[in-house]
This record gives sequence, C-alpha cells and structure tokens, in this order.
Amino acid sequence: MSRTVYLNGAWLPEAEAKISVFDRGFLFADAIYEVTGVIDGKLIDYDAHAARLKRSLQALGIPMPVDDGTLLDLHRQIAQRNGITEGLIYLQVSRGAQDRDFLFPDPLEPTFVMFTQAKRILDNPKWNKGISLKTVAEGRWSRRQIKTVQLLYSSFEKMEAHREGYDDVLFVENGHVTEASSANFHIISREGRLITRDLSNALLHGITRGSILDLARRAGLETEERSFTVAEAKAAAEAFITSATSFLIPVVSLDGTNIGDGTVGPVGRRLLDLYIKDRRENGLPIAT
Amino acid sequence: MSRTVYLNGAWLPEAEAKISVFDRGFLFADAIYEVTGVIDGKLIDYDAHAARLKRSLQALGIPMPVDDGTLLDLHRQIAQRNGITEGLIYLQVSRGAQDRDFLFPDPLEPTFVMFTQAKRILDNPKWNKGISLKTVAEGRWSRRQIKTVQLLYSSFEKMEAHREGYDDVLFVENGHVTEASSANFHIISREGRLITRDLSNALLHGITRGSILDLARRAGLETEERSFTVAEAKAAAEAFITSATSFLIPVVSLDGTNIGDGTVGPVGRRLLDLYIKDRRENGLPIAT
Repeated sequence: MSRTVYLNGAWLPEAEAKISVFDRGFLFADAIYEVTGVIDGKLIDYDAHAARLKRSLQALGIPMPVDDGTLLDLHRQIAQRNGITEGLIYLQVSRGAQDRDFLFPDPLEPTFVMFTQAKRILDNPKWNKGISLKTVAEGRWSRRQIKTVQLLYSSFEKMEAHREGYDDVLFVENGHVTEASSANFHIISREGRLITRDLSNALLHGITRGSILDLARRAGLETEERSFTVAEAKAAAEAFITSATSFLIPVVSLDGTNIGDGTVGPVGRRLLDLYIKDRRENGLPIAT
Repeated sequence: MSRTVYLNGAWLPEAEAKISVFDRGFLFADAIYEVTGVIDGKLIDYDAHAARLKRSLQALGIPMPVDDGTLLDLHRQIAQRNGITEGLIYLQVSRGAQDRDFLFPDPLEPTFVMFTQAKRILDNPKWNKGISLKTVAEGRWSRRQIKTVQLLYSSFEKMEAHREGYDDVLFVENGHVTEASSANFHIISREGRLITRDLSNALLHGITRGSILDLARRAGLETEERSFTVAEAKAAAEAFITSATSFLIPVVSLDGTNIGDGTVGPVGRRLLDLYIKDRRENGLPIAT
C-alpha cells in the first residue's frame, strides 16, 4: 500500500513526494526533524514534540513552516489518511532550496515534509527480552541538543554494531556516557536511584526521557541528573533506553557484560507500565 | 538561464531535478560530494577528485554509481551542456532511498546528482585583498576525512561570522587549528617554511592542499606537516587557505590580529601563480 505523504501543502502518493536536489536539507544537512509516537489512535507527548520542534528551528534560524493549529491538524490528518492507529508520524523541516552556497543570507521558504510509519509499538518483544549495547567513541557534532538530520554517525555505527551482533551502540565521550544512537540511556543504581545524564549540548533532550523522569519522581523514585561512566553503567542494577517509538527498552548487557543479572529488571518495567497506562489515558486523540 | 542537471542517468532542467523525500541523503545526511574546478575549459585536479570520491564512498560502503570512464565523460558532458569554461562541477552520491530506518541492511541503488555553477575563479578579487578569519571551536563530527554532506556546522558558523564582518571561520580543536569552513589552512613561518596540519581524521584531505604542497616542494620551499596553535598562526609571516574553487586565498587577519603586515604576502602569491600556470597547462580539457 502506498502511503500519502505531506509535502509543502500537498498530499502526495509517496512515490511522487520529491524535493529539489538544491534543497539545503540534501546538500548541507540543514534540516531538523521530529518523531511522534501513536498508540490506540492517540498522539503521545505531542505538545512536548511540538515545543522541541520550535526550539530546534529557532536554534538554526529556520521559521516555523505552519502555525500551531495547522501543525496539530496535519498530525491528525496524516494519521487518518494513512490509517495509523499505532506507529509514528515523522516530520522534517529544512531551510529550503537555493543555489548551493555555504552562506544563506536570504530567507528561504522552508521545505516541510511529513510521513507515517505503521509500527507495532505496544508489546514490543524487546520489552521482555532487553537489548545489548556496544560502547563506541562519541563522534557526532557538538550541538546534539538540536535535532538535526546529521545522523550519519549514529546510523553507520548502529549498522556496524548490528553486524557484530549487538542491538545498538552507546556513545561515550571523555569516559562518560552520552546516549544511544537514537535514544537516551539511563541506569538504576544498586541503591535504587534513577541516574540519567543531565541536559547539555552533549545529548538530545529526549521527550520520553523527560516523561519517564517525571513519572519516576511522581512514583517516589529518587532521581539524579548527572553524567556517569561506562564502569558505573556496567555496575548498575538495571539500565534502559528511552525514545519516542520504543518508549523504554531494558538494556541487559553492555560490551558483553551483563547488567544486573542480565535480565529485564523490575524498576524499568514498572516505569514502562506507568508510561503506557498514563499515555493510553492521556494521549491526544487523532479523531476529533 | 536554467541549468541542465544530471540525475541518475537523466539530463533534466534544474527545476525538474528532484529526489525522493525518502532519500537517505535527505533523512540521514548519508551522502558524500566532490567539487571540481574548471578554468580555461579544463578540469582541475580531476584525477585526485575522482580518487577521493572513491575513498569517501568506500569509507561509507556506498558503491560507485558509474565506472571511471563514465564519470569523466559525465564531467565533460555537463560542462559542455551548461557552457561552463570557468566555474565548478558539483557531484553528490547518497546511499539511496528506503523507508526511514537507522539500519540499512539491504544494498540500495545510490542517488547520483551532478550540477554546475558558473563562477569567476581566475582574478578572484580576494587574491589581492585577502580575507579575515574568526576562530571558532571545532564542532563537526569526528571523521572529517570523509567528504560528507554533514556541513551544517560549517555553513552555520560561516554565516554567523559573515554577519559579524569576517569572511570565514577557522576551526580550533584542543588549541590546534583544524581547517576553515570548507578550505584547508596553512601558514608561512617567519623562517619561510610552509606549515600545514598533517593528515588525519581531524580534517579534510584537500586536493588543492596536496597540489600546493607538491608545487611548494618542487619550488624548493621547506614544508612541515604538523598541527599548530592559533598563537603560532597569528605570529606567522603569511597565512592562506586552499580549496578547489578558490585555489589559494591569503588570510590577512585572524580574530582581528594582522598576520604579517596585514597584506597579501609574497610566498602565497608565488604558490598561487605557480598553481594557476601549471593547471592552465596541464588541466584535463573538457572538449575531446
């Protein structure tokens, strides 16, 4: 089945959704993106994703392509047009097209594209099995809090790790964990504290990270936002990653070393269950 | 006048040269590029650019989209079709299009695009006037020897520097110069030595850098390939940048400090003249 893609005001069959080769998103990676999860016909953490979209665009001086109401309406419309009740909505905004030049003195018309992916989010088999990570030297650019499409390092290193039998990579900078290829990384200490890296330019400010932290605090868990080493991660009771379309996945081994007893731990599972329950109740319905 | 663009085997008016929004060049910056200069109807350093193209593709595991003979033929054809006797030929190869996924287990058909830009390369006014640079913390990814389209940092920082009245930026990592936004940086010491950073993953292995070094050695200049500090650059007799379409541009000030007496120096000028003379004689003619 061909998807219907949104591109600069038009609804197009996916094979016809094309952009200029002069688009700065293609020539300079001058573009940002967002991914919003959908379960039970509801948008998950929509407001937070929309707010981060604005922050990313603002950081690069790219104007918002549509107003707030239209943005939400487009999310609802694209899910309905593609029959998405579980999966994700991807959006990307580039600075626009101009003859190739490192300089961009003139304001351009942003390129705005949205598409959907059907995906089984709930009952992810990895929730029960956990995943294995391999540490890799951090090699991305220095402004990782901006959600740009400069994803080559993450993609390439994840592919390499897959070929070696790992599920994903964990980036390490100056001995300290930053994040996984496209997910934040967290540990539960032997004392039962949730420890996660504090926000800075070193990592993406994950929406699901924020949601899980919030739920953890409301559930009475002690939390610490600070950087930590690979050794501390390996010695943790539990570890997990969080992202918009996997929610929370336990990490059961790191560089071949079991974390805890090498199986899915109870604290991560509890936080995942709290998150699912809350979002099922409080997600933003696609149908109005 | 509309240019004729080459895209995956077709010659298209530039307005019709479009790629899928699912192209990994657009979604993941999973693409590499090359720029070859043209003067007097001749391709400059073509063989070296073609060789680096292969190295970049190999580093990312992307197949060459065409064979060697076809690649040269396309360079000649696109220059002729667009009447380019002075300017540049740009080419980009992305891994190709697939539904968005950080993993790319299946071989894809690469996307191959080429276009031209008419540009006054000879008698560049900056050759006589020189340019001013501003130092900026290095913030690009860690594999800068691969010529990827992850150019957002370079482009953004150059634009910022322009707004402040500088011509370009000079990236600095751990106190040592890496390169300018899209050009290698070199100094002439007070003792008359050409000093340029040694090749590593920290900087692009510039084709023009190599050509100028070669000419300098043949002209009897002593050369040193090693990293150097901003202080050493500021204390140099001369400084210049090299790139495929500017050849060699004198840098007359760095962070507002004059280099030498703040005017174009004789050694850089001599190397530029040698390079122009040699390439005018030995460039690869577009017409066969």
